[in-house]
Amino acid sequence: MTDARDTGLRLNPKYDKDGLITAVASNVETGELLMLAHMNAQALAATIETKVAHFWSRSRGRLWRKGEESGNELHVVDLRIDCDQDALWLLVRPVGPACHTGRRSCFFRRVTDEAGLALVDDESAAGQ
Amino acid sequence: MTDARDTGLRLNPKYDKDGLITAVASNVETGELLMLAHMNAQALAATIETKVAHFWSRSRGRLWRKGEESGNELHVVDLRIDCDQDALWLLVRPVGPACHTGRRSCFFRRVTDEAGLALVDDESAAGQ
Repeated sequence: MTDARDTGLRLNPKYDKDGLITAVASNVETGELLMLAHMNAQALAATIETKVAHFWSRSRGRLWRKGEESGNELHVVDLRIDCDQDALWLLVRPVGPACHTGRRSCFFRRVTDEAGLALVDDESAAGQ
Repeated sequence: MTDARDTGLRLNPKYDKDGLITAVASNVETGELLMLAHMNAQALAATIETKVAHFWSRSRGRLWRKGEESGNELHVVDLRIDCDQDALWLLVRPVGPACHTGRRSCFFRRVTDEAGLALVDDESAAGQ
């Protein structure tokens, strides 16, 4: 079932009860998913205006320009919204590692069932 | 700040208060983000076991094998979890269009500020 929000051309983000929408960023060159975070309307507006990714930090309870401390900004090349307008996709050029652990991507661990259920760190060999 | 969950090699998903974790799927060949949905522990286990994406349908309140009606399954090539283990990334080979609108990706609309804030449908020219 589809409605106007699903296929129409009016931007109408469906914020959750906390006023947030999920946003994921991937590297526009490689397709690698870098991080998942949340935006409120203010963060979305700032992202659109500056073309630098802004999020709402739930832990700090404030607007957060990604890289404001680390310098590792995400420069937004393309911004997309999904069918029911409750998720955003940012295609970005990262200035540096996206993850707070120093990894290139937050998704640096692969789930494997080779030895029960464990994780494999694909970036560890590259150092951090 | 990091802890064992952030960098350790034990799978320890951080489910929200509803028992769900956000999961995004992208095309392993092209890097295109296809969809964002949610999994509970049962959906994650089924995905790992069958290598076909399963989610928890919040609207229907039940386990949902993506493609169970449409046939448009997502075959999971790689499964990753992020630093704080509250998001999953599935790298998939899609059998058909991932979106319920018939589009290849749910993220078929680009946000543009060229004429105020509107959306551009990048897949419409290709038909649906």
